[in-house]
Amino acid sequence: MSAAVELFSEQGFAATTVPQITERAGLTTRTFFRHFADKREVLFGHEDAPAQARAVLAQAPPGMSTPEFIAWGLRLMARERFDGHRDELRVIQALIDSDESLQERSLRKREFLNSLVGEALRSRGLGKQQARLLAEATVSALYVALDQWLNSDTDVSIDALALTALAGLHADLDGIGTAQRPAAELGRPSP
Amino acid sequence: MSAAVELFSEQGFAATTVPQITERAGLTTRTFFRHFADKREVLFGHEDAPAQARAVLAQAPPGMSTPEFIAWGLRLMARERFDGHRDELRVIQALIDSDESLQERSLRKREFLNSLVGEALRSRGLGKQQARLLAEATVSALYVALDQWLNSDTDVSIDALALTALAGLHADLDGIGTAQRPAAELGRPSP
Repeated sequence: MSAAVELFSEQGFAATTVPQITERAGLTTRTFFRHFADKREVLFGHEDAPAQARAVLAQAPPGMSTPEFIAWGLRLMARERFDGHRDELRVIQALIDSDESLQERSLRKREFLNSLVGEALRSRGLGKQQARLLAEATVSALYVALDQWLNSDTDVSIDALALTALAGLHADLDGIGTAQRPAAELGRPSP
Repeated sequence: MSAAVELFSEQGFAATTVPQITERAGLTTRTFFRHFADKREVLFGHEDAPAQARAVLAQAPPGMSTPEFIAWGLRLMARERFDGHRDELRVIQALIDSDESLQERSLRKREFLNSLVGEALRSRGLGKQQARLLAEATVSALYVALDQWLNSDTDVSIDALALTALAGLHADLDGIGTAQRPAAELGRPSP
Protein backbone atom coordinates (compact mmCIF):
# COMPACT_ATOMS: atom_id res chain seq x y z
CA MET A 1 0.00 0.00 0.00
CA SER A 2 1.35 3.43 -0.84
CA ALA A 3 2.58 5.76 1.89
CA ALA A 4 -0.14 8.29 1.08
CA VAL A 5 -2.98 5.78 1.31
CA GLU A 6 -1.55 4.44 4.59
CA LEU A 7 -1.48 7.93 6.07
CA PHE A 8 -4.95 8.88 4.80
CA SER A 9 -6.24 5.67 6.31
CA GLU A 10 -4.44 6.12 9.67
CA GLN A 11 -5.15 9.78 10.35
CA GLY A 12 -7.85 10.78 7.86
CA PHE A 13 -7.60 12.42 4.44
CA ALA A 14 -8.09 16.01 5.63
CA ALA A 15 -5.45 15.78 8.38
CA THR A 16 -2.72 14.42 6.11
CA THR A 17 -0.24 16.86 4.55
CA VAL A 18 1.98 16.50 1.50
CA PRO A 19 5.18 16.80 3.61
CA GLN A 20 3.97 13.90 5.77
CA ILE A 21 3.38 11.82 2.66
CA THR A 22 6.75 12.60 1.10
CA GLU A 23 8.54 11.94 4.40
CA ARG A 24 7.00 8.50 4.75
CA ALA A 25 7.54 7.69 1.08
CA GLY A 26 11.13 8.94 1.16
CA LEU A 27 10.56 11.42 -1.65
CA THR A 28 11.18 15.12 -1.99
CA THR A 29 8.15 17.40 -2.14
CA ARG A 30 9.46 18.51 -5.51
CA THR A 31 9.24 14.96 -6.86
CA PHE A 32 5.75 14.61 -5.42
CA PHE A 33 4.50 17.69 -7.23
CA ARG A 34 6.08 16.54 -10.46
CA HIS A 35 3.59 13.66 -10.43
CA PHE A 36 0.55 14.99 -8.56
CA ALA A 37 -1.17 18.37 -8.53
CA ASP A 38 -2.21 17.85 -4.89
CA LYS A 39 -2.70 15.10 -2.28
CA ARG A 40 -6.14 14.27 -3.64
CA GLU A 41 -4.67 13.23 -6.97
CA VAL A 42 -2.67 10.44 -5.34
CA LEU A 43 -5.94 8.52 -5.14
CA PHE A 44 -6.76 9.04 -8.81
CA GLY A 45 -3.53 8.26 -10.63
CA HIS A 46 -0.56 10.36 -11.66
CA GLU A 47 -0.56 13.29 -14.08
CA ASP A 48 0.53 11.27 -17.11
CA ALA A 49 -2.03 8.51 -16.65
CA PRO A 50 -4.61 9.94 -19.10
CA ALA A 51 -2.08 10.39 -21.90
CA GLN A 52 -0.71 6.90 -21.24
CA ALA A 53 -4.15 5.33 -21.25
CA ARG A 54 -4.94 7.06 -24.56
CA ALA A 55 -1.69 5.80 -26.08
CA VAL A 56 -2.34 2.25 -24.87
CA LEU A 57 -5.84 2.15 -26.33
CA ALA A 58 -4.49 3.42 -29.64
CA GLN A 59 -2.17 0.37 -29.72
CA ALA A 60 -5.01 -2.13 -29.81
CA PRO A 61 -4.22 -4.90 -32.26
CA PRO A 62 -5.94 -4.29 -35.60
CA GLY A 63 -8.76 -6.48 -36.83
CA MET A 64 -10.53 -6.82 -33.50
CA SER A 65 -14.30 -6.62 -33.47
CA THR A 66 -15.88 -4.05 -31.13
CA PRO A 67 -16.65 -6.66 -28.41
CA GLU A 68 -13.10 -7.99 -28.70
CA PHE A 69 -11.70 -4.48 -28.34
CA ILE A 70 -13.81 -3.89 -25.21
CA ALA A 71 -12.71 -7.20 -23.69
CA TRP A 72 -9.09 -6.40 -24.54
CA GLY A 73 -9.29 -2.92 -22.99
CA LEU A 74 -10.96 -4.20 -19.83
CA ARG A 75 -8.33 -6.94 -19.42
CA LEU A 76 -5.52 -4.44 -19.87
CA MET A 77 -7.06 -2.08 -17.36
CA ALA A 78 -7.62 -4.87 -14.85
CA ARG A 79 -4.00 -5.95 -15.17
CA GLU A 80 -2.57 -2.45 -14.84
CA ARG A 81 -4.84 -1.03 -12.15
CA PHE A 82 -6.75 -3.74 -10.30
CA ASP A 83 -5.22 -7.26 -10.21
CA GLY A 84 -3.41 -7.74 -6.90
CA HIS A 85 -4.42 -4.34 -5.47
CA ARG A 86 -7.78 -5.23 -3.95
CA ASP A 87 -6.84 -4.35 -0.36
CA GLU A 88 -5.45 -0.96 -1.29
CA LEU A 89 -8.41 -0.22 -3.55
CA ARG A 90 -10.82 -1.07 -0.72
CA VAL A 91 -9.09 1.50 1.49
CA ILE A 92 -9.18 4.07 -1.33
CA GLN A 93 -12.87 3.39 -1.96
CA ALA A 94 -13.66 3.88 1.74
CA LEU A 95 -11.71 7.17 1.71
CA ILE A 96 -13.63 8.39 -1.33
CA ASP A 97 -16.95 7.39 0.24
CA SER A 98 -16.07 9.45 3.33
CA ASP A 99 -15.26 12.75 1.60
CA GLU A 100 -17.50 14.81 -0.67
CA SER A 101 -14.70 16.49 -2.62
CA LEU A 102 -13.22 13.05 -3.34
CA GLN A 103 -16.61 11.85 -4.56
CA GLU A 104 -16.80 14.78 -6.96
CA ARG A 105 -13.30 14.04 -8.20
CA SER A 106 -14.31 10.43 -8.64
CA LEU A 107 -17.30 11.43 -10.77
CA ARG A 108 -15.02 13.57 -12.92
CA LYS A 109 -12.67 10.62 -13.33
CA ARG A 110 -15.60 8.53 -14.47
CA GLU A 111 -16.59 11.22 -16.98
CA PHE A 112 -13.03 11.26 -18.21
CA LEU A 113 -13.06 7.49 -18.67
CA ASN A 114 -16.29 7.82 -20.64
CA SER A 115 -14.62 10.29 -23.02
CA LEU A 116 -11.47 8.24 -23.31
CA VAL A 117 -13.33 5.05 -24.23
CA GLY A 118 -15.72 6.96 -26.49
CA GLU A 119 -12.80 8.53 -28.32
CA ALA A 120 -11.16 5.13 -28.80
CA LEU A 121 -14.40 3.66 -30.16
CA ARG A 122 -14.86 6.59 -32.54
CA SER A 123 -11.34 6.14 -33.84
CA ARG A 124 -12.35 2.53 -34.58
CA GLY A 125 -15.15 3.74 -36.84
CA LEU A 126 -18.21 4.01 -34.59
CA GLY A 127 -20.52 7.02 -34.95
CA LYS A 128 -20.47 9.74 -32.32
CA GLN A 129 -23.69 8.84 -30.51
CA GLN A 130 -23.07 5.12 -30.84
CA ALA A 131 -19.55 5.46 -29.42
CA ARG A 132 -20.77 7.58 -26.53
CA LEU A 133 -23.51 5.14 -25.53
CA LEU A 134 -21.29 2.07 -25.80
CA ALA A 135 -18.51 3.82 -23.86
CA GLU A 136 -20.89 4.79 -21.07
CA ALA A 137 -22.28 1.26 -20.89
CA THR A 138 -18.76 -0.19 -20.75
CA VAL A 139 -17.71 2.20 -17.99
CA SER A 140 -20.95 1.48 -16.09
CA ALA A 141 -20.16 -2.23 -16.32
CA LEU A 142 -16.65 -1.57 -15.03
CA TYR A 143 -18.03 0.29 -11.99
CA VAL A 144 -20.62 -2.40 -11.33
CA ALA A 145 -17.82 -4.97 -11.52
CA LEU A 146 -15.60 -2.88 -9.24
CA ASP A 147 -18.37 -2.76 -6.67
CA GLN A 148 -18.80 -6.57 -6.83
CA TRP A 149 -15.07 -7.17 -6.72
CA LEU A 150 -14.35 -4.86 -3.76
CA ASN A 151 -17.29 -6.19 -1.76
CA SER A 152 -16.52 -9.88 -2.11
CA ASP A 153 -13.56 -12.21 -2.12
CA THR A 154 -14.31 -13.57 -5.57
CA ASP A 155 -11.42 -15.05 -7.51
CA VAL A 156 -12.97 -13.81 -10.74
CA SER A 157 -11.03 -10.87 -12.17
CA ILE A 158 -12.69 -7.51 -12.54
CA ASP A 159 -12.64 -7.59 -16.33
CA ALA A 160 -14.40 -10.96 -16.36
CA LEU A 161 -17.04 -9.55 -14.01
CA ALA A 162 -17.50 -6.53 -16.28
CA LEU A 163 -17.87 -8.75 -19.36
CA THR A 164 -20.46 -10.87 -17.57
CA ALA A 165 -22.35 -7.69 -16.67
CA LEU A 166 -22.23 -6.51 -20.30
CA ALA A 167 -23.44 -9.92 -21.51
CA GLY A 168 -26.33 -9.57 -19.05
CA LEU A 169 -27.08 -6.09 -20.42
CA HIS A 170 -27.08 -7.53 -23.93
CA ALA A 171 -29.60 -10.17 -22.87
CA ASP A 172 -31.77 -7.59 -21.07
CA LEU A 173 -31.90 -5.43 -24.20
CA ASP A 174 -32.95 -8.31 -26.41
CA GLY A 175 -35.96 -7.17 -28.43
CA ILE A 176 -35.64 -3.52 -27.36
CA GLY A 177 -35.90 -2.05 -30.86
CA THR A 178 -39.10 -3.91 -31.57
CA ALA A 179 -40.68 -3.59 -28.10
CA GLN A 180 -44.19 -2.37 -28.76
CA ARG A 181 -45.58 0.45 -26.70
CA PRO A 182 -49.17 -0.64 -26.21
CA ALA A 183 -51.09 2.56 -26.97
CA ALA A 184 -53.99 1.60 -24.73
CA GLU A 185 -51.64 1.27 -21.76
CA LEU A 186 -50.45 4.85 -22.02
CA GLY A 187 -53.14 6.22 -19.75
CA ARG A 188 -52.37 9.64 -18.39
CA PRO A 189 -50.59 9.33 -15.03
CA SER A 190 -52.51 10.54 -12.03
CA PRO A 191 -51.40 13.96 -10.77
CA MET B 1 -42.01 29.29 -22.59
CA SER B 2 -42.13 29.87 -18.86
CA ALA B 3 -41.58 33.32 -17.43
CA ALA B 4 -38.43 32.19 -15.62
CA VAL B 5 -36.82 30.69 -18.73
CA GLU B 6 -37.71 33.83 -20.70
CA LEU B 7 -36.02 36.05 -18.11
CA PHE B 8 -32.94 33.81 -17.78
CA SER B 9 -32.65 33.88 -21.52
CA GLU B 10 -33.13 37.66 -21.84
CA GLN B 11 -30.89 38.89 -19.03
CA GLY B 12 -28.83 35.87 -17.97
CA PHE B 13 -29.34 33.32 -15.22
CA ALA B 14 -27.21 35.06 -12.58
CA ALA B 15 -28.87 38.47 -13.05
CA THR B 16 -32.41 37.16 -12.70
CA THR B 17 -34.08 37.30 -9.27
CA VAL B 18 -37.02 35.34 -7.89
CA PRO B 19 -39.14 38.53 -7.48
CA GLN B 20 -38.59 39.28 -11.19
CA ILE B 21 -39.74 35.78 -12.07
CA THR B 22 -42.83 35.88 -9.88
CA GLU B 23 -43.74 39.34 -11.16
CA ARG B 24 -43.62 38.24 -14.77
CA ALA B 25 -45.43 34.98 -14.03
CA GLY B 26 -48.08 36.74 -11.96
CA LEU B 27 -47.38 34.61 -8.88
CA THR B 28 -46.59 35.45 -5.28
CA THR B 29 -43.08 34.71 -4.04
CA ARG B 30 -44.72 32.48 -1.47
CA THR B 31 -46.28 30.33 -4.20
CA PHE B 32 -42.95 30.17 -6.02
CA PHE B 33 -41.15 28.83 -2.98
CA ARG B 34 -43.87 26.28 -2.38
CA HIS B 35 -42.79 24.65 -5.66
CA PHE B 36 -39.09 25.46 -6.00
CA ALA B 37 -36.25 25.63 -3.47
CA ASP B 38 -34.55 28.36 -5.54
CA LYS B 39 -34.47 29.84 -9.04
CA ARG B 40 -32.12 27.12 -10.26
CA GLU B 41 -34.72 24.45 -9.60
CA VAL B 42 -37.12 26.00 -12.11
CA LEU B 43 -34.92 24.48 -14.80
CA PHE B 44 -35.01 21.01 -13.25
CA GLY B 45 -38.65 20.44 -12.37
CA HIS B 46 -40.74 21.19 -9.33
CA GLU B 47 -40.27 19.74 -5.83
CA ASP B 48 -42.85 16.97 -6.22
CA ALA B 49 -41.54 15.72 -9.57
CA PRO B 50 -39.38 12.88 -8.13
CA ALA B 51 -42.21 11.46 -6.02
CA GLN B 52 -44.59 11.75 -8.98
CA ALA B 53 -42.16 10.05 -11.33
CA ARG B 54 -41.71 7.21 -8.84
CA ALA B 55 -45.48 6.80 -8.50
CA VAL B 56 -45.94 6.79 -12.27
CA LEU B 57 -43.29 4.11 -12.82
CA ALA B 58 -44.92 1.97 -10.13
CA GLN B 59 -48.16 2.09 -12.15
CA ALA B 60 -46.65 0.32 -15.15
CA PRO B 61 -49.11 -2.20 -16.52
CA PRO B 62 -48.27 -5.71 -15.28
CA GLY B 63 -46.99 -8.43 -17.55
CA MET B 64 -44.64 -6.22 -19.54
CA SER B 65 -41.23 -7.60 -20.42
CA THR B 66 -38.20 -5.52 -19.43
CA PRO B 67 -37.77 -4.02 -22.94
CA GLU B 68 -41.49 -3.23 -23.04
CA PHE B 69 -41.26 -1.51 -19.65
CA ILE B 70 -38.31 0.59 -20.83
CA ALA B 71 -40.15 1.57 -24.02
CA TRP B 72 -43.26 2.42 -21.99
CA GLY B 73 -41.29 4.55 -19.51
CA LEU B 74 -39.45 6.42 -22.24
CA ARG B 75 -42.71 7.14 -24.09
CA LEU B 76 -44.33 8.43 -20.92
CA MET B 77 -41.35 10.64 -20.15
CA ALA B 78 -41.28 11.99 -23.71
CA ARG B 79 -44.95 12.84 -23.53
CA GLU B 80 -44.74 14.52 -20.13
CA ARG B 81 -41.46 16.39 -20.49
CA PHE B 82 -40.33 16.64 -24.09
CA ASP B 83 -43.02 16.45 -26.82
CA GLY B 84 -43.88 19.98 -27.93
CA HIS B 85 -41.29 21.67 -25.71
CA ARG B 86 -38.26 21.53 -27.98
CA ASP B 87 -37.76 25.29 -28.24
CA GLU B 88 -37.94 25.83 -24.49
CA LEU B 89 -35.65 22.84 -23.85
CA ARG B 90 -33.10 24.23 -26.29
CA VAL B 91 -33.02 27.49 -24.32
CA ILE B 92 -32.73 25.57 -21.03
CA GLN B 93 -29.91 23.44 -22.44
CA ALA B 94 -28.02 26.55 -23.55
CA LEU B 95 -28.47 28.06 -20.07
CA ILE B 96 -27.14 24.90 -18.41
CA ASP B 97 -24.18 24.79 -20.78
CA SER B 98 -23.31 28.37 -19.81
CA ASP B 99 -23.22 27.94 -16.03
CA GLU B 100 -21.09 25.55 -14.01
CA SER B 101 -23.45 25.29 -11.05
CA LEU B 102 -26.27 24.39 -13.43
CA GLN B 103 -24.07 21.72 -15.00
CA GLU B 104 -23.44 20.20 -11.58
CA ARG B 105 -27.14 20.26 -10.83
CA SER B 106 -27.77 18.62 -14.18
CA LEU B 107 -25.33 15.81 -13.36
CA ARG B 108 -27.11 15.27 -10.04
CA LYS B 109 -30.42 15.10 -11.86
CA ARG B 110 -28.98 12.46 -14.14
CA GLU B 111 -27.75 10.50 -11.11
CA PHE B 112 -31.20 10.78 -9.64
CA LEU B 113 -32.76 9.44 -12.84
CA ASN B 114 -30.33 6.52 -12.74
CA SER B 115 -31.51 5.64 -9.21
CA LEU B 116 -35.16 6.10 -10.06
CA VAL B 117 -35.01 3.81 -13.10
CA GLY B 118 -32.79 1.33 -11.24
CA GLU B 119 -35.26 1.20 -8.37
CA ALA B 120 -38.16 0.60 -10.78
CA LEU B 121 -36.24 -2.22 -12.49
CA ARG B 122 -35.37 -3.81 -9.15
CA SER B 123 -39.00 -3.73 -8.10
CA ARG B 124 -39.71 -5.65 -11.31
CA GLY B 125 -37.41 -8.45 -10.20
CA LEU B 126 -34.00 -7.56 -11.64
CA GLY B 127 -30.91 -8.05 -9.47
CA LYS B 128 -29.18 -5.03 -7.98
CA GLN B 129 -26.18 -4.87 -10.33
CA GLN B 130 -28.25 -5.84 -13.36
CA ALA B 131 -30.83 -3.12 -12.59
CA ARG B 132 -28.13 -0.51 -12.09
CA LEU B 133 -26.38 -1.27 -15.37
CA LEU B 134 -29.59 -1.38 -17.38
CA ALA B 135 -30.82 1.84 -15.76
CA GLU B 136 -27.57 3.64 -16.57
CA ALA B 137 -27.68 2.41 -20.17
CA THR B 138 -31.29 3.56 -20.53
CA VAL B 139 -30.52 7.00 -19.10
CA SER B 140 -27.43 7.26 -21.33
CA ALA B 141 -29.62 6.47 -24.32
CA LEU B 142 -32.09 9.14 -23.23
CA TYR B 143 -29.32 11.76 -23.05
CA VAL B 144 -27.90 10.70 -26.40
CA ALA B 145 -31.40 10.99 -27.84
CA LEU B 146 -31.92 14.38 -26.18
CA ASP B 147 -28.72 15.62 -27.78
CA GLN B 148 -29.86 14.41 -31.22
CA TRP B 149 -33.34 15.80 -30.75
CA LEU B 150 -32.26 19.26 -29.57
CA ASN B 151 -29.65 19.61 -32.28
CA SER B 152 -31.85 18.70 -35.23
CA ASP B 153 -35.35 19.26 -36.48
CA THR B 154 -36.18 15.59 -36.65
CA ASP B 155 -39.83 14.62 -36.46
CA VAL B 156 -38.87 11.44 -34.63
CA SER B 157 -39.83 11.63 -30.96
CA ILE B 158 -37.18 11.46 -28.30
CA ASP B 159 -38.29 8.07 -26.99
CA ALA B 160 -38.08 6.57 -30.47
CA LEU B 161 -34.54 7.99 -30.82
CA ALA B 162 -33.60 6.52 -27.43
CA LEU B 163 -34.99 3.09 -28.40
CA THR B 164 -33.04 3.17 -31.64
CA ALA B 165 -29.90 4.01 -29.66
CA LEU B 166 -30.55 1.09 -27.28
CA ALA B 167 -31.14 -1.25 -30.20
CA GLY B 168 -27.78 -0.10 -31.59
CA LEU B 169 -26.15 -0.78 -28.22
CA HIS B 170 -27.69 -4.25 -28.22
CA ALA B 171 -26.20 -4.91 -31.65
CA ASP B 172 -22.80 -3.53 -30.61
CA LEU B 173 -22.70 -5.84 -27.59
CA ASP B 174 -23.51 -8.92 -29.65
CA GLY B 175 -20.99 -11.61 -28.75
CA ILE B 176 -19.57 -9.66 -25.80
CA GLY B 177 -19.72 -12.51 -23.29
CA THR B 178 -17.83 -14.82 -25.58
CA ALA B 179 -15.36 -12.29 -27.00
CA GLN B 180 -11.97 -13.92 -26.63
CA ARG B 181 -9.08 -11.92 -25.28
CA PRO B 182 -6.18 -13.12 -27.41
CA ALA B 183 -3.44 -13.78 -24.82
CA ALA B 184 -0.65 -13.10 -27.29
CA GLU B 185 -2.04 -9.63 -27.98
CA LEU B 186 -1.80 -8.58 -24.37
CA GLY B 187 1.74 -7.28 -24.68
CA ARG B 188 2.76 -4.91 -21.91
CA PRO B 189 1.94 -1.33 -22.94
CA SER B 190 4.95 0.89 -23.51
CA PRO B 191 5.60 3.29 -20.62
